[in-house]
Amino acid sequence: MPDLIAFGEVMVRLAPPHFQRLEQARSLDIEIGGAEFNTAAGLTRLGRTAGWVSRLPDNPLGKLIANRVREAGVSTDFVQYVPDARCGLYFLEFGASPRPSSILYDRKDSATAGVACGMFDWPKIFTGAKWFHVTGITAALSFGAAEVVDEAMHAAHAANMSVSVDLNYRSKLWTREHASQVMGLLLPMCDVLIASEADAEHLFGITGNDFTEVAKQLVDKFGVKTVVGTRREADLVWKNKFACVGYSAGKTYESAWYEVEIVDRLGAGDALASGLIHGLLDGDLKKGVDYGAAMGALKHTIPGDIPWINRDEVEAALKGQGLRIKR
Amino acid sequence: MPDLIAFGEVMVRLAPPHFQRLEQARSLDIEIGGAEFNTAAGLTRLGRTAGWVSRLPDNPLGKLIANRVREAGVSTDFVQYVPDARCGLYFLEFGASPRPSSILYDRKDSATAGVACGMFDWPKIFTGAKWFHVTGITAALSFGAAEVVDEAMHAAHAANMSVSVDLNYRSKLWTREHASQVMGLLLPMCDVLIASEADAEHLFGITGNDFTEVAKQLVDKFGVKTVVGTRREADLVWKNKFACVGYSAGKTYESAWYEVEIVDRLGAGDALASGLIHGLLDGDLKKGVDYGAAMGALKHTIPGDIPWINRDEVEAALKGQGLRIKR
Amino acid sequence: MPDLIAFGEVMVRLAPPHFQRLEQARSLDIEIGGAEFNTAAGLTRLGRTAGWVSRLPDNPLGKLIANRVREAGVSTDFVQYVPDARCGLYFLEFGASPRPSSILYDRKDSATAGVACGMFDWPKIFTGAKWFHVTGITAALSFGAAEVVDEAMHAAHAANMSVSVDLNYRSKLWTREHASQVMGLLLPMCDVLIASEADAEHLFGITGNDFTEVAKQLVDKFGVKTVVGTRREADLVWKNKFACVGYSAGKTYESAWYEVEIVDRLGAGDALASGLIHGLLDGDLKKGVDYGAAMGALKHTIPGDIPWINRDEVEAALKGQGLRIKR
Amino acid sequence: MPDLIAFGEVMVRLAPPHFQRLEQARSLDIEIGGAEFNTAAGLTRLGRTAGWVSRLPDNPLGKLIANRVREAGVSTDFVQYVPDARCGLYFLEFGASPRPSSILYDRKDSATAGVACGMFDWPKIFTGAKWFHVTGITAALSFGAAEVVDEAMHAAHAANMSVSVDLNYRSKLWTREHASQVMGLLLPMCDVLIASEADAEHLFGITGNDFTEVAKQLVDKFGVKTVVGTRREADLVWKNKFACVGYSAGKTYESAWYEVEIVDRLGAGDALASGLIHGLLDGDLKKGVDYGAAMGALKHTIPGDIPWINRDEVEAALKGQGLRIKR
Amino acid sequence: MPDLIAFGEVMVRLAPPHFQRLEQARSLDIEIGGAEFNTAAGLTRLGRTAGWVSRLPDNPLGKLIANRVREAGVSTDFVQYVPDARCGLYFLEFGASPRPSSILYDRKDSATAGVACGMFDWPKIFTGAKWFHVTGITAALSFGAAEVVDEAMHAAHAANMSVSVDLNYRSKLWTREHASQVMGLLLPMCDVLIASEADAEHLFGITGNDFTEVAKQLVDKFGVKTVVGTRREADLVWKNKFACVGYSAGKTYESAWYEVEIVDRLGAGDALASGLIHGLLDGDLKKGVDYGAAMGALKHTIPGDIPWINRDEVEAALKGQGLRIKR
Amino acid sequence: MPDLIAFGEVMVRLAPPHFQRLEQARSLDIEIGGAEFNTAAGLTRLGRTAGWVSRLPDNPLGKLIANRVREAGVSTDFVQYVPDARCGLYFLEFGASPRPSSILYDRKDSATAGVACGMFDWPKIFTGAKWFHVTGITAALSFGAAEVVDEAMHAAHAANMSVSVDLNYRSKLWTREHASQVMGLLLPMCDVLIASEADAEHLFGITGNDFTEVAKQLVDKFGVKTVVGTRREADLVWKNKFACVGYSAGKTYESAWYEVEIVDRLGAGDALASGLIHGLLDGDLKKGVDYGAAMGALKHTIPGDIPWINRDEVEAALKGQGLRIKR
Repeated sequence: MPDLIAFGEVMVRLAPPHFQRLEQARSLDIEIGGAEFNTAAGLTRLGRTAGWVSRLPDNPLGKLIANRVREAGVSTDFVQYVPDARCGLYFLEFGASPRPSSILYDRKDSATAGVACGMFDWPKIFTGAKWFHVTGITAALSFGAAEVVDEAMHAAHAANMSVSVDLNYRSKLWTREHASQVMGLLLPMCDVLIASEADAEHLFGITGNDFTEVAKQLVDKFGVKTVVGTRREADLVWKNKFACVGYSAGKTYESAWYEVEIVDRLGAGDALASGLIHGLLDGDLKKGVDYGAAMGALKHTIPGDIPWINRDEVEAALKGQGLRIKR
Repeated sequence: MPDLIAFGEVMVRLAPPHFQRLEQARSLDIEIGGAEFNTAAGLTRLGRTAGWVSRLPDNPLGKLIANRVREAGVSTDFVQYVPDARCGLYFLEFGASPRPSSILYDRKDSATAGVACGMFDWPKIFTGAKWFHVTGITAALSFGAAEVVDEAMHAAHAANMSVSVDLNYRSKLWTREHASQVMGLLLPMCDVLIASEADAEHLFGITGNDFTEVAKQLVDKFGVKTVVGTRREADLVWKNKFACVGYSAGKTYESAWYEVEIVDRLGAGDALASGLIHGLLDGDLKKGVDYGAAMGALKHTIPGDIPWINRDEVEAALKGQGLRIKR
Repeated sequence: MPDLIAFGEVMVRLAPPHFQRLEQARSLDIEIGGAEFNTAAGLTRLGRTAGWVSRLPDNPLGKLIANRVREAGVSTDFVQYVPDARCGLYFLEFGASPRPSSILYDRKDSATAGVACGMFDWPKIFTGAKWFHVTGITAALSFGAAEVVDEAMHAAHAANMSVSVDLNYRSKLWTREHASQVMGLLLPMCDVLIASEADAEHLFGITGNDFTEVAKQLVDKFGVKTVVGTRREADLVWKNKFACVGYSAGKTYESAWYEVEIVDRLGAGDALASGLIHGLLDGDLKKGVDYGAAMGALKHTIPGDIPWINRDEVEAALKGQGLRIKR
Repeated sequence: MPDLIAFGEVMVRLAPPHFQRLEQARSLDIEIGGAEFNTAAGLTRLGRTAGWVSRLPDNPLGKLIANRVREAGVSTDFVQYVPDARCGLYFLEFGASPRPSSILYDRKDSATAGVACGMFDWPKIFTGAKWFHVTGITAALSFGAAEVVDEAMHAAHAANMSVSVDLNYRSKLWTREHASQVMGLLLPMCDVLIASEADAEHLFGITGNDFTEVAKQLVDKFGVKTVVGTRREADLVWKNKFACVGYSAGKTYESAWYEVEIVDRLGAGDALASGLIHGLLDGDLKKGVDYGAAMGALKHTIPGDIPWINRDEVEAALKGQGLRIKR
Repeated sequence: MPDLIAFGEVMVRLAPPHFQRLEQARSLDIEIGGAEFNTAAGLTRLGRTAGWVSRLPDNPLGKLIANRVREAGVSTDFVQYVPDARCGLYFLEFGASPRPSSILYDRKDSATAGVACGMFDWPKIFTGAKWFHVTGITAALSFGAAEVVDEAMHAAHAANMSVSVDLNYRSKLWTREHASQVMGLLLPMCDVLIASEADAEHLFGITGNDFTEVAKQLVDKFGVKTVVGTRREADLVWKNKFACVGYSAGKTYESAWYEVEIVDRLGAGDALASGLIHGLLDGDLKKGVDYGAAMGALKHTIPGDIPWINRDEVEAALKGQGLRIKR
Repeated sequence: MPDLIAFGEVMVRLAPPHFQRLEQARSLDIEIGGAEFNTAAGLTRLGRTAGWVSRLPDNPLGKLIANRVREAGVSTDFVQYVPDARCGLYFLEFGASPRPSSILYDRKDSATAGVACGMFDWPKIFTGAKWFHVTGITAALSFGAAEVVDEAMHAAHAANMSVSVDLNYRSKLWTREHASQVMGLLLPMCDVLIASEADAEHLFGITGNDFTEVAKQLVDKFGVKTVVGTRREADLVWKNKFACVGYSAGKTYESAWYEVEIVDRLGAGDALASGLIHGLLDGDLKKGVDYGAAMGALKHTIPGDIPWINRDEVEAALKGQGLRIKR
């Protein structure tokens, strides 16, 4: 029944407070994060409904993740619990110029990575849904996971749903060659592709003078209808400029630029995807680009991966409402 | 006996740590805040004495407030405790660009709002005092509170005290029309008016090309002797430029500008008022504008609403002493 | 669709850490709590499904509560959001012998208290449900709330559901006379009554030599089928003995006694109710009394009002499995 | 004007949270503590007024102490600020059986220890006051401090005030011989002596079969009118039994025993002193012994040295009101 | 050069504060723990020197462990860093009666588990050392780890060192059959065996009327010289009675019993082993049993697995010095 | 055996969290800091070995310091423990523009300040070492400390070690005249001098148009071979520009400039010294200047005084690798 179904891993995120290095830390703050779930959560903030499909270990960490997925308003009805499995973890160190933030993955052999075709009843899951969202991270988890992405995309097309893919290349998870090959096989089933120009070049050798040139080639190569990218100027770790750009059917749409004071950089791209899909569910790429930029910009101001943003805040940002305290 | 008597509400302020949204928070930091008290506290930091007049619930939250008022060096001798009353609360979310900070008031039907004429023995309270300070927030609390402001101002004049009013329009507390009407009745009893150009226009339709033009009209309209304003450039949530400007008897005084790295924006205007009154108690508006700007600027760097600033720090700021660690 | 529907208020609970008095506190830990919801959450821990019916303010505190209700696995599908309403709060001070713990309510005029007949579509809410649970606290909130309890109980009977009421007299919310009158009107629609011997005497003048004698009189007076009570020996604040006793159709059932090292006393009775209903949903009062005692005993060991207990832990407690670290 | 004047040192107390050893700690909780001030604070909780006389360094730690003394409702009007002085500190490790709690003093050469005769205008300080309280700890600080105790006691007698001394022998501050000699000179000016039987034997060689026998000898030897002692049974670190006993004019009074679940053991004896003086200010030693025991017992349940207790809680304890949550 | 060489895994230990369940936690406290290292750390507290041999991942978590091992005074000179390996983790939930504490291991495929014969130059590591200590946990990690235990024990004998083994059966790591077989092969190389009567029966089918009978059979079966056991009475989670018993050459030695108020139960047995080895290094089993009991009892009072105990505290405990605050 | 021997005091550093003023703080974060030790720690991060020579009180604070020195990988083999001594402390308030950060020293009469010639066996300590590092802070501690610096420098020369001195003038520790005189006597034994242009003028009256002119005069006056300085542009408290410059044998070397988002400003100069010495140990001043700038810049991003930086991060900074999250 939810508008959106997202498939992917959610990990427990463990980060030392106040810029500490992991090796000096005495406590870790717990958040959860996973690209597809983050996007699903963003959709619920905008008034849509969303469900998350995945596998979790049947232990306290798996329960922690399910609890918090529900807390964010996303359905766990289709989550499977795996006995004796382990939970994907990631450790996050917040940096500051000139030291970038850094992630240590400990997600190998997780419950989600053990997924295989046939485990999920996609036609049932997709009943009543309009949109399927997945990212390249899921495909990178394991051979089985990549196969299930393929399986789900086929089922989504059969159900007349739209499919979006965020390319999201992670060099710590797989090689360029492997990613290029697998994503090359999956993208033809994708309607909306979110991809950076850097990844387009890195994985597919596609270059161009500007976003539009790159987007056109991605459309030509993979048959996607829409290509969307994030724009970021990052001279510092804690202050960036951020915008969104989209291309479809020969036209390019650009959002306003936002100057963002960064509280937590993680999940900004996923929040952008949620704003984008929100617009596209209304059949309006311009709206998607604008909402995507606003959702992404606002996400930078919120601790954790989840975009705890209200729709009126998005609309205020779109109107350029100022920075005075609301009182 | 104190130099300054301040009348108004102090609330318990509850804010999630580290930029969290309220709805994701697991703990709240407790501060207290109330515009008039904040100013009284600022005066004590500059070596003056101050007392705070109000009503508190006779419960642990009321005691918390009284404890902390005393901690800040302000007398609670004239505070009344009300059985079975509730305590004004406000919840604060710290924002970051492009998300402004936000306040959720839960102060309705508070002990202070239940104030009525005749409850306070103003002549006794004002014995030996030189200055009475109040803000438009108090007048906004309730009909009774506005009446008591009127009552106190009359008593202050009878006691040959100076009276300052910080206009401080709060759209979440009353409408523009209501505020305009009530403040219009109260201001003629005011000697020193602190008002932003925006509020002057919003409440009284007064506009001008610059502060001086606006101030002159406020002087003409209400008979106040002095008008003081805050200047703020706020392109970001966490870095602003800040200054003070004052007008009296045909002359305009401007402070230096301060670039402020903001730790806690709340109470900056109240701290400015304390520096201003400190100068005016010495009969020196120029000093008031300079101390006001420095107190206000320094307040931005301190957590909570209370300006825990030392006089030597104000003087160092006035001299433009640099930013090197003092060691 | 859920097995159980619970109706009542959930408040934001604010407690200073580590036994601090409120007036000395610098931070508050946030939990949520509400008797009926706590019981609903307990049911989900035992593998049942549950939904919570209530009204919340349409503000960040209302969202916080809804988020956490979902986090606990309880459906918020039938929650209504009220603009410009306030959120019920309670402040909790943990005591230690000889100082009892203490609660300061700030729940007057809350969104939930503003409930009135006709606001909820009970037949729709009850579709597919088996059990309705409410407590005397809800009836104490306001005249409207008591009326809605009556309305809901009638609807539950019409839907062939069982109805349980936890008497839960709160002297800070209403007088003995008022409680006696209102609860006396409501109890005839109740199947299962949870009541302490003290409340039975205090509200209804019913006394007896033991629980069975009291229970029989409650059955006779109100026509309830089952009466259940908590047994507690509390010589200290942080160590108690705890058990459950139930009466129905002439037979009395007693659970084992548990020695409990108390981490958080709140919600123990509500957890007992969940274990009880779990057994009664299987038609087994003996099971209900046993699960109730174990759920209640285990709840004492968990921070917050919510019984984050696993079914295997309940079963281990029932078997008297020891206290060695599980490793 | 205050009822009670207390003279002594207040230190910044620094303690690791949650039973950590200092050497493993990453943060320290800040409280303030000083035997005489603690007693003064206790008096204000019972509705009396109290002032504290001392010397503090003119630096942020001195300000912290003054702020918190005022927060506790005790006047700092007679506190002197010393430039370039240091602040007395103590580090506290909470133990658990079989490891006792432990204190590391770092108070040498503190501002208070630098006190000398003539620094305080005792006749002015004592104007309107009824009671002077000091402890053996102050006399132990330095030669100058012992002299000032003598000076103050003489001034108190001249002002017709009562004088109480808590013997409070601290082996880390001075030797038995030194304490015996100095306290032997001071006690003849004392009206009310608080002393343990162990200290009476240790310092003065006084022994007896019970408290009364010891008290009689102290009365005989030093001419004090009243002798009061604490009774404690301490088989564990975190659970004790506690009571108070007093002797005067041939009669011995004993309080009820309290079983105390200990949150913070520090300041229990000082709280006892405040209850005692509260009774004696009413001329009622029996009341003093009872209130002393209740104040002391309740203090164990509160973090920090300050007895944040309300008079109604003392009265409830005296009535043996139970341990049920107040709600 | 160190007196003792310990071989085994150290994990990062992650525990929610204040009795929270993992699934409700928002932060985790970080400690490190590993049975053999814990014992090595205990030896350094008693004035001995100790080194720890293991393998760590070459990432921030591995560095965290090495940092803290050094912090505890144990040498990391023989630690190897493994690229692209993962760090053993364990998650700890503190219980309270009737809920036992619980451990969730996430240590599979850790750097330490990947150890194999030939990786360590034991003769070099053992140069100058007197004692080798290992536990059954290390043997349980992997086939390779068990082989390296064997390798190290042979090398220790060749170096004329004493060898102690703590049986420490962990049912979450291996089956009884597997443990029985592997430990049966290793124990003949052991001089001092620490084993509970329960494990003796569980793994080897050895039973007896008392410790001495069991110890004798273990001596007979495996040729060990000395058998040592822990005695614990655990009616509650947070208060136990604790003692040590040892057998050698026909004689049984028993320590005093300690009543322990438990702060952190983990590592108590390892601390006991350190006190035991401390005595045995002086050739005195009686001393070992007494120091073992005192070290183990005191460890219960300290957060984390590491026994931050001072020798004078051990000696005070042995003398039965009381529980008064040391001040 | 370590490459570097550092001599100086390490203090316990106590700082309120989140920009609080000391006087409003309720807790303090504990770090350790001491200029020479900080530099030694930096060397270990770059793969060198280092030992720290000092005196600590034989109490829990002294142990805390030793524990954490070892945690940072620096040897404490030559630390002496002094009974009944006190530990140097410093209290740190973090500022924000326009309020600078501020330090309150409480280090008088510390164990380290009590050092005297003959206490350390320098020839033994220096066996196998290549470099001796000290700062002007040590010389400022006491007459004895200055003498021991002289003693150690002579011994270092006798051992053919290089000697570096960081001038580090601290006006809160000694007067300009005293510092000028003592450092003037010590510097002729120094090979590498780290000094700011401001200190060169302030202490020695040396001025110049640029760093090179100043450095030449320092070389001429004191016979040092190399002079190194920090360059800092500090318009704000939390964002600076930072670089390093060095002069030797007629040539000046400048590093790249780094824009630093400051987390903790303390120890940046000491980290620079470690990078510098790292280069000079390879006989390469250019490398030293580059590594010094990178180490110093990166230190700003890490809480506490210790540079928890990895060599690969230094190398990435030197290559100008960007600020994207590493994932």
